[in-house]
Amino acid sequence: MRGYTPGEQIRGAIKLNTNESAFPPSPRVRSVLAGIADDSLRLYPDPVSRKLRETAAALYGVTPEQVLAGNGSDDCLTILYRAFLSPGDEVRVPSPTYGLYDTLATLQAARFSTVPYRQVGRRWELPEDLAGPGAKMVIVANPNNPSATVASTDELRRLCARSPGIVVVDEAYVDFSLGAGLAASMLPYLAEYENLVVLRTFSKSYSLAGARLGLLFAAPALVAELTKVKDSYNVNVITQALGTAALEDREHHRQLIAGTLAQRARLETALAAMGFTWPESAANFLLCTPPVPARAEELYLALKAQGLLVRWWGTPELRERLRITVGKPEDNDRLIGALKALV
Amino acid sequence: MRGYTPGEQIRGAIKLNTNESAFPPSPRVRSVLAGIADDSLRLYPDPVSRKLRETAAALYGVTPEQVLAGNGSDDCLTILYRAFLSPGDEVRVPSPTYGLYDTLATLQAARFSTVPYRQVGRRWELPEDLAGPGAKMVIVANPNNPSATVASTDELRRLCARSPGIVVVDEAYVDFSLGAGLAASMLPYLAEYENLVVLRTFSKSYSLAGARLGLLFAAPALVAELTKVKDSYNVNVITQALGTAALEDREHHRQLIAGTLAQRARLETALAAMGFTWPESAANFLLCTPPVPARAEELYLALKAQGLLVRWWGTPELRERLRITVGKPEDNDRLIGALKALV
Repeated sequence: MRGYTPGEQIRGAIKLNTNESAFPPSPRVRSVLAGIADDSLRLYPDPVSRKLRETAAALYGVTPEQVLAGNGSDDCLTILYRAFLSPGDEVRVPSPTYGLYDTLATLQAARFSTVPYRQVGRRWELPEDLAGPGAKMVIVANPNNPSATVASTDELRRLCARSPGIVVVDEAYVDFSLGAGLAASMLPYLAEYENLVVLRTFSKSYSLAGARLGLLFAAPALVAELTKVKDSYNVNVITQALGTAALEDREHHRQLIAGTLAQRARLETALAAMGFTWPESAANFLLCTPPVPARAEELYLALKAQGLLVRWWGTPELRERLRITVGKPEDNDRLIGALKALV
Repeated sequence: MRGYTPGEQIRGAIKLNTNESAFPPSPRVRSVLAGIADDSLRLYPDPVSRKLRETAAALYGVTPEQVLAGNGSDDCLTILYRAFLSPGDEVRVPSPTYGLYDTLATLQAARFSTVPYRQVGRRWELPEDLAGPGAKMVIVANPNNPSATVASTDELRRLCARSPGIVVVDEAYVDFSLGAGLAASMLPYLAEYENLVVLRTFSKSYSLAGARLGLLFAAPALVAELTKVKDSYNVNVITQALGTAALEDREHHRQLIAGTLAQRARLETALAAMGFTWPESAANFLLCTPPVPARAEELYLALKAQGLLVRWWGTPELRERLRITVGKPEDNDRLIGALKALV
């Protein structure tokens, strides 16, 4: 098998290829980091990240028993696959979407099936036949990656109601969508659907991709089963403390999202002026079609030669597009300047 | 199924139940922690922990291609199980040993078989029939947990030569054995056996249980396959940096081991005077039989009531023993005083 291919990392390059936050994490994170005690390092961490989960539960209006913490939301996904999928079981996703879902299916010897998104103008709508018999697990990234488009909670609730298996809604980017005034999260419906699992990450709107932290929300009985599957001490003591501090600093989180959306608007204006198009974005990235679509790969390579990393895939669905992460102001300047010279 | 049961954590208690180091980590770890940059937190970590692996490879006389870093050696074990065991495959261990090996087999729907150690005086010897057909993977903790006994590299090399499957030697505690002048590690034989996997952890002799870091050593082709199975960003950026700093501080590591062995000697003198016995220890803990063996559980509970946690299991093989971690001088004083009053 082939493993998952993470986005490129090139020393000194401007990274607009992996959708990290453009802005630094909360200053509270730094002071927590400096204050980690020797005994915290020396002893095993809390296996169930209690304080972090209590903080998250209070913030999101759920109970700690509805929350599981993971070593990144990749860990949460791995736990879900191992808990729910036996060899031959089917996992179904709308496509194109986050490539890791496919890799994890291969690892678990599960069947992976895709149903194309319905692309209606600048919207990508969930395909109707995502629900229905067959699939043990359906996964929807919402907002979706790489399209940055968002499905409505009405669509997702219909999916939960109609699906016989688990429905995982991966809300890695949802904070950028909420920031825009859309009530896109499924968390308010957690108690309503026993088959609903919601994932959140600290790698995007909390600027903590380096620390590895994800949260999984589900019914308490489900969380209890998943807890048996996770590694005993899956989240280290430092990350538990940083995550708690990050959740507590609501004002920094608000500013970070506002700053990202302001930069996205700027990037959109510049890209539109050059003739790029993209589905309406509810995230911190844009899936752009260049004015001459066939030049996408050439643009990706030309940008890379200048130390500007954006994401390009060679698949038929995506080969005429570039996924561009919203960067810091100066990174966006560099990108806009480079693209102006190229197109 | 039942999940793995980690050692108890009770706030304010003295923890002599989970074999962590008694002493703080290297001061270099602290200064690295204080110097973590915002950009390190904001961006994804190096997926393959290159600098850490290079440092470890130089120290242990192997190549970086022979090293994989994990989120604790639990993560390394999980990766091994997922890579090598299909449902119904057999994993074999000498018993009693570390309970997680069994739990992971259940999770992977693998068969778990045990062969009892041959207890010869104060030595525990590897059973001859550990090798031989049937097992896809054999795991030996060396030194063993919970006995603290060590098998010779001669025994282990015979096991590698005779086993048709993978042989995993979990050297979580081996540094305490090397400190005693025993050349117990299988790392020098890595190139000799293509089926050999050696595990190391930072949770014991590096005092970094809270940070979660383990290393796996094996042939490059094997490491390449295992890398596909691990989560993409399985070791966070902070832990990668702390682990590198800890490896580089050889003098602190030497002192930590010497300090632990000195405390172990003191504890052994006091326990022997009270009539306790234990297999010869090559680790930072002792598997003690009390002067009245049937009182083991009662002693465990009485110590716990005083805020002193040691490990007791209710299984037939272990119910008359206590596993006691070597603590800091003042913790050992407390333990010795409490036991004197009880026996």
